[in-house]
Amino acid sequence: MDADETRSYPRESRNVVNRLSKRAAYDYETIHGIVNAASVVHVSFLPPSPSGNYYENPQELLPMILPMIGKIGVYPNGGDEAPVCYLHGHVSSRLMKISPTTSALDAAESDGLSVCIAATHIDGLVLALNPFSHSYNYRSAILQGAATVVSDGDEKLWAMTLITNGVLPHRWENTNPPTPAEMQSTQILKVRIVTASAKIRAEGPHDQRSNVQNEELVRRVWTGVVPVFEGFGEPVPSTYNGVPTLPEDIREYLRQENVKRKNDAIRAAKGGDHGVVEQTSTPSL
Amino acid sequence: MDADETRSYPRESRNVVNRLSKRAAYDYETIHGIVNAASVVHVSFLPPSPSGNYYENPQELLPMILPMIGKIGVYPNGGDEAPVCYLHGHVSSRLMKISPTTSALDAAESDGLSVCIAATHIDGLVLALNPFSHSYNYRSAILQGAATVVSDGDEKLWAMTLITNGVLPHRWENTNPPTPAEMQSTQILKVRIVTASAKIRAEGPHDQRSNVQNEELVRRVWTGVVPVFEGFGEPVPSTYNGVPTLPEDIREYLRQENVKRKNDAIRAAKGGDHGVVEQTSTPSL
Repeated sequence: MDADETRSYPRESRNVVNRLSKRAAYDYETIHGIVNAASVVHVSFLPPSPSGNYYENPQELLPMILPMIGKIGVYPNGGDEAPVCYLHGHVSSRLMKISPTTSALDAAESDGLSVCIAATHIDGLVLALNPFSHSYNYRSAILQGAATVVSDGDEKLWAMTLITNGVLPHRWENTNPPTPAEMQSTQILKVRIVTASAKIRAEGPHDQRSNVQNEELVRRVWTGVVPVFEGFGEPVPSTYNGVPTLPEDIREYLRQENVKRKNDAIRAAKGGDHGVVEQTSTPSL
Repeated sequence: MDADETRSYPRESRNVVNRLSKRAAYDYETIHGIVNAASVVHVSFLPPSPSGNYYENPQELLPMILPMIGKIGVYPNGGDEAPVCYLHGHVSSRLMKISPTTSALDAAESDGLSVCIAATHIDGLVLALNPFSHSYNYRSAILQGAATVVSDGDEKLWAMTLITNGVLPHRWENTNPPTPAEMQSTQILKVRIVTASAKIRAEGPHDQRSNVQNEELVRRVWTGVVPVFEGFGEPVPSTYNGVPTLPEDIREYLRQENVKRKNDAIRAAKGGDHGVVEQTSTPSL
């Protein structure tokens, strides 16, 4: 069962994009695409209070971030079409150790630990006539939701397949299945997505008219976009690799992705309508 | 004044790396290098309580993440050698709007808003014989500290130069200086770093001996590392660009970085000693 990718996340005060809202998106397809194309996501949470009580020791309210692998999918046997972000980590890592009883937050929200997940792709350095108008082209998604441990064995196996194949297509089927011991020491978190938003910039620089009309400046300062993309290099076999040549499906995937990612960054650089803004623009992410 | 890069951050319970601690580092040079080489960092914080009171409404304790540009430096006129992470954003963005009086945390820590900053580079897909032993090569740094707004005009200008040139060397000097209005609508946060740690994986896959001794498996499944790097494509001029050819210093920087980043990822893929582990290994980030 796939999520209906034409749906959108609700707009609420805590996820609505206030700045440059024309760059915002709330639809499943955009948001899920940004997350699932990211090799790494950043997960923020409140670690348990060392003293056991946030309220008496508010200086212990220190948000933490962990880089993790996160992929969004809909478990076909879950009886629910709501998409979930599955996170992969090891049982002993800081986030995975948090049990529902050690977090103040969970006392309030019994349905899991509140987390924020960010996936960001930098697609270009946007170079303008003055530093203020510099920016990045980017695709960014922010999710907020409640994390719980996946306890159902079938769902866990399904999520591990989703995550492994999300890093390299068909890798799960092309390797040895995990042993029961390996399954047990891998922990998967599922994050029920409560709010989500995306923000995308895909265009050339914008400079103020006064600067664009300054001939000396325009002739002196190169303006445009340096496309940025995550690329793959020539694979390096392990010391114990026994396959003489890289399998064709891996080589073809890497080649296609390199071409696609580079072209997408170039397309973003060439996007947008015009480069002159009348007012002081608002750069940055 | 530069920070003494031979120094290290203190190891405390909240920053010490518990898992795979041989991959951890606490020295300035490693941590600052990872942050300053990142095109984007992720900043986590607790937004102000909508009701104005976290303690009566703990369900409002929802950490938020924003992608930002962050660069570490030591302001030469600051009278202090402690390195600071400067963050760039616009005054109206969610994080920048937080005033010291709206955050519960600030009531406790009067010296700023507590933030966590993460910088992550993915350097390779580590492909092993079974999904469980798959991993990434990566360089990750996590900082925790207190954020305040840079109010001193000279320090702000210095930090903007650090940030701009941190994205593209010499870009600040090669563009038009910002106007007073532009200076005013740009806000810089400085984060005094309280704890910090780095974690690095730079080696080939590790598989269990039983799998490495399985000849059928070793002959069937390609193992090794696919190097991953952030690359630059051919720059795209803006519609109003007036410089006929890309300046040589930019072209040379992009060329050198592309070679260096690709080579670094390949070097990481070839690192490490051997690929066989006796026990169940602990993969993931």
